[in-house]
Amino acid sequence: MSKALVVFSGGQDSTTCLFWALKNFDEVETLCFDYGQRHRIELDAARSIAEKAGMQFTLLNLDLLKQITHNSLTDQAMDVEENKPDNRPPNTLVEGRNMLFLTFAAIFAKGKDIPNLVTGVGQADFSGYPDCRDEFVRSLNQTLNLSMDYNFTIHTPLMWKSKQEIWALSDELGVFDLVRTQTVTCYNGIKGAGCGHCPACQLRKNGLKSYLKQKA
Amino acid sequence: MSKALVVFSGGQDSTTCLFWALKNFDEVETLCFDYGQRHRIELDAARSIAEKAGMQFTLLNLDLLKQITHNSLTDQAMDVEENKPDNRPPNTLVEGRNMLFLTFAAIFAKGKDIPNLVTGVGQADFSGYPDCRDEFVRSLNQTLNLSMDYNFTIHTPLMWKSKQEIWALSDELGVFDLVRTQTVTCYNGIKGAGCGHCPACQLRKNGLKSYLKQKA
Repeated sequence: MSKALVVFSGGQDSTTCLFWALKNFDEVETLCFDYGQRHRIELDAARSIAEKAGMQFTLLNLDLLKQITHNSLTDQAMDVEENKPDNRPPNTLVEGRNMLFLTFAAIFAKGKDIPNLVTGVGQADFSGYPDCRDEFVRSLNQTLNLSMDYNFTIHTPLMWKSKQEIWALSDELGVFDLVRTQTVTCYNGIKGAGCGHCPACQLRKNGLKSYLKQKA
Repeated sequence: MSKALVVFSGGQDSTTCLFWALKNFDEVETLCFDYGQRHRIELDAARSIAEKAGMQFTLLNLDLLKQITHNSLTDQAMDVEENKPDNRPPNTLVEGRNMLFLTFAAIFAKGKDIPNLVTGVGQADFSGYPDCRDEFVRSLNQTLNLSMDYNFTIHTPLMWKSKQEIWALSDELGVFDLVRTQTVTCYNGIKGAGCGHCPACQLRKNGLKSYLKQKA
């Protein structure tokens, strides 16, 4: 029987991944992180989505990440940049975040003999986050296997998809409405359509617009 | 000016690394982890050694590791195995520990623009820990660089040294007595010579005996 653990945040991408995993594995559970993110309301959305889907939901406290990094997602005194800077990553970058999420997920998964890890990172709508790139994920997969002498497979079903294609996938999976109304993508923590102007909302909104246009 | 961060535990190996780093870099600071280890007294030793050497000492709380792993170092109800099992790692193995230590160290170091990370892991006196192997450390180095788009170098001065050679190095560095009396290697948390019978004490003791015999 195939088992998978989804790194889950309650956002559009990881929710789509969750339903992708439910279709592709026999047993699926979710792992969430509270790292002091300004949009912590996403954790309530995550719990509610996981519970409605009848899945195990585990929330880990990773407050330590907030203590050692400086960025606008965990530091409330810093504003989220609305435009992508040219010569450096946006100030929403949380250094090492995906590496830590996936490492904790791997440790947690090995203890339950779950070899498949699923994450919603992708590089098609590249936001300047080095830890969303395929090259990074493949290198991490190898390092995790060496670290714990175990054969993990990290699945990234969204790696090469645009936001438009991610909306299409959620529709294919029969969860378009759920994703549209129940997830939190917005950095300002507003469910569904969000604030509409933060970088995360802009990406989501433009993708949705393109998808609806294509579908019409 | 060259800067290095030493992943420091107050044990024989990382203390030797600390003085190795002081010789090889212009500026050195230390990072320690409290992960609920049974020999937490090592953290007092670490702080005292770092402070006496005039170095910055930072202690991070990684209690989360204890919550998601099961082993005799963090679970007081489980006994430390005195003999190395044949067909599996010893029950003192904390899954993912070195990977997390070095990942947190890298995140912390990048924030201070410190490219050099120093760790006392080694595979010569192999204890069955996959995350002490050179192959793992090299893979991790690459993954960290990709993760944060930065050029870290992980230094492992003890990688190929036996315990005997590590004693020799501490003597060379002029800290033989300090290491012998002020560090905590013992899983039962006894400073200096330790309990003498846990696996960590046995390794340390046998190495010391060989070194003293060689020197005589």
